[in-house]
Amino acid sequence: MKLPVIILNCKTYGQVEGEGALKMARICQEVHDETGISIAICPPSIELSKVASEVAIPVLAQNVDTWDGSVKTGTVSLSAVKAAGATGLLINHSECRRLLADIEALITGAKELGLDTIVCSNNVAVSKASAAMGPDMVAMEPPELIGGDISVTSSDPDIVRSTVEEVSKISPDVKVLTGAGVKTREDVSKALELGTHGVLLASGVIKAKDQKAVLLSLAEGLLKK
Amino acid sequence: MKLPVIILNCKTYGQVEGEGALKMARICQEVHDETGISIAICPPSIELSKVASEVAIPVLAQNVDTWDGSVKTGTVSLSAVKAAGATGLLINHSECRRLLADIEALITGAKELGLDTIVCSNNVAVSKASAAMGPDMVAMEPPELIGGDISVTSSDPDIVRSTVEEVSKISPDVKVLTGAGVKTREDVSKALELGTHGVLLASGVIKAKDQKAVLLSLAEGLLKK
Amino acid sequence: MKLPVIILNCKTYGQVEGEGALKMARICQEVHDETGISIAICPPSIELSKVASEVAIPVLAQNVDTWDGSVKTGTVSLSAVKAAGATGLLINHSECRRLLADIEALITGAKELGLDTIVCSNNVAVSKASAAMGPDMVAMEPPELIGGDISVTSSDPDIVRSTVEEVSKISPDVKVLTGAGVKTREDVSKALELGTHGVLLASGVIKAKDQKAVLLSLAEGLLKK
Amino acid sequence: MKLPVIILNCKTYGQVEGEGALKMARICQEVHDETGISIAICPPSIELSKVASEVAIPVLAQNVDTWDGSVKTGTVSLSAVKAAGATGLLINHSECRRLLADIEALITGAKELGLDTIVCSNNVAVSKASAAMGPDMVAMEPPELIGGDISVTSSDPDIVRSTVEEVSKISPDVKVLTGAGVKTREDVSKALELGTHGVLLASGVIKAKDQKAVLLSLAEGLLKK
Repeated sequence: MKLPVIILNCKTYGQVEGEGALKMARICQEVHDETGISIAICPPSIELSKVASEVAIPVLAQNVDTWDGSVKTGTVSLSAVKAAGATGLLINHSECRRLLADIEALITGAKELGLDTIVCSNNVAVSKASAAMGPDMVAMEPPELIGGDISVTSSDPDIVRSTVEEVSKISPDVKVLTGAGVKTREDVSKALELGTHGVLLASGVIKAKDQKAVLLSLAEGLLKK
Repeated sequence: MKLPVIILNCKTYGQVEGEGALKMARICQEVHDETGISIAICPPSIELSKVASEVAIPVLAQNVDTWDGSVKTGTVSLSAVKAAGATGLLINHSECRRLLADIEALITGAKELGLDTIVCSNNVAVSKASAAMGPDMVAMEPPELIGGDISVTSSDPDIVRSTVEEVSKISPDVKVLTGAGVKTREDVSKALELGTHGVLLASGVIKAKDQKAVLLSLAEGLLKK
Repeated sequence: MKLPVIILNCKTYGQVEGEGALKMARICQEVHDETGISIAICPPSIELSKVASEVAIPVLAQNVDTWDGSVKTGTVSLSAVKAAGATGLLINHSECRRLLADIEALITGAKELGLDTIVCSNNVAVSKASAAMGPDMVAMEPPELIGGDISVTSSDPDIVRSTVEEVSKISPDVKVLTGAGVKTREDVSKALELGTHGVLLASGVIKAKDQKAVLLSLAEGLLKK
Repeated sequence: MKLPVIILNCKTYGQVEGEGALKMARICQEVHDETGISIAICPPSIELSKVASEVAIPVLAQNVDTWDGSVKTGTVSLSAVKAAGATGLLINHSECRRLLADIEALITGAKELGLDTIVCSNNVAVSKASAAMGPDMVAMEPPELIGGDISVTSSDPDIVRSTVEEVSKISPDVKVLTGAGVKTREDVSKALELGTHGVLLASGVIKAKDQKAVLLSLAEGLLKK
């Protein structure tokens, strides 16, 4: 994934059910095509293959199960995600916490398949632990700010700075993303100023009346850098 | 769903990763078109929307999460499944066991959305409990026979008979399906003779060299009735 | 367990940490000795063996894990609970929901060991499903009333009546208990009038200033019957 | 906890059900009293309080739940464990895997209560991640060797050496324990030679005909150092 990046998590919003997921992905594609900035989308699981077939921007799974290769029902495996055309995955989102051993297994398995991994984290200690397992990125998202109107870059810039500093001590190869409450172009440019390589966001775009206008504005925040 | 029915669970087989899911669904469609028998398919989660967009036969989710309406990541909701074009769902497959309260909530929620529900069960007592919650169907699958070469109709016809009898006492509206080890046209016709309304199967078709030939043969077992 | 019964669930209240659990159990023993009514106590897991060694009234586990006999860490098994002197267990409390298949396995396993089983349920459909698996009792507890000040016997007597009626249709051997919001002697006598065989309660006793006085008063509600 | 230490995990062995747990703890106490070596015991959950009341050696929980302070049923909390007299806890045993965020919350919460924390790990990457969250100890246990007859110190000394080295880079304050397959005095002395501060074991002692003799022999391995 080209950095810096805007990663859009579709979550379970009604706006991305059915045809909505593909529509949202096409808007991301347009903004990428018009501005050149790097945008990735995480569609709902059941829309993953359809979306990945229809757009060229990176498509990431919201969650992947660990899988021992035995036959399972209802399991989303790394290999199926890869075969569907996804290029990476979120791991351990605040709304989808995962076992420590499974996070490590997913990072290792994804690496073998060439899939990008973004581990979400709720505080500096968990960010360090995540970085120690060698994912591509760690997304710092204080849970109390997720889905809210105040960006972590305004309310708690120090937690972002500490994360960047501590993660780079554990492993300089692991990049940090800013999540939680990101809504405006200022939030995005502040995220880059704090040393992170992009943002992970959801409601700010998905629930906007004019989703494309918001994405274009966020893109400017990324370009200013 | 028209009864009797053959329900094909794609599980996590390599054959149904990526393009394989849609290919498998198209074979089911062809067999339905050629024979008139009722066939439904349960694609891998991430292929659900794509498959449902491309075929006319019933498409069922392998698993759906309970969802309280709050924003979630990695969650598959009933409404998203409905919006994607699915017409029903498996619940509580042996490889994906569910909480009792969640099974009831899914059955109730699915009914409101007009989605068909098939609750999988491992023994007679669990079949009775499942029936008491009013799903459309209960699929009886002794776990030790799942994925094997011996059909429950041969190895343990009494468990199927007991299930039919006990389920009808609890609620005559709930139909029973036969699962576990179903592989041949004889297994299918035996399943109907035992009073069940169809079969739930996976490996017998998915892993076959000539999937269409096997499905056509199973269809004959259904037609003989 | 002699019926009717008052079952006291200690939950995680601070009052029953450390020495508090044994103290609470001794109060139950005294009230039993003084009034002759049947009282059972569910201490916190880690206090189970100590409490069961020190009192003669029935001691029940708040929760037991399903266990396949392989070596596990952190698992509470039926056989260990039995060996510790407990005489039964709660299953599927609203704050500790369980898999359908595990509930059935626990009921069956407990029966073999001579342990009493009480399955908690959140609505009539789940009560029916629970009864179909043959536990000794089903405790009806609408989750929204648990821990509150209004008894289900006042706010929703019909749900209790329906549960009694539907459970007896499924199996006349399964007794019903009333839970959720039970606090006064009137709540207890109303619970018996509605056809249930006792109450399952927690906060009403545990958080009382004078726990023994409250228990004695509840005992009167049971005796009036 | 005084280091080096032998930590005995009782797991779910039949030998430690009922009175067996206390008997085992008393043997540990005797060996401690006779040799002066540091021994800690992890009894089954339901025996925790009873064992902690009766012996003076450190008693650790096999597992503790994360707990937000709201009322729960079947939950084992840090404060209840502390109140029962335990002095620490295992976290994330291979047979009881935990969420990354919960591991961090348990380490932080235990520190506030003065409880010792030992995080179990299955490989070097997970050991590093665990160390990054600041527990007192990390116990390295390759899952395939747990419960077996070959000690990790013989079959894979390099994984132990790497763990010691990598953990000390992350945090020199975090000590490493050797687990999996430890059975003899040689295994124990080898564990110390490799730079770890003790052993975590179960079957080697619990299943021994003469448990005390085995413990005394292991103690010699610790003393030789």
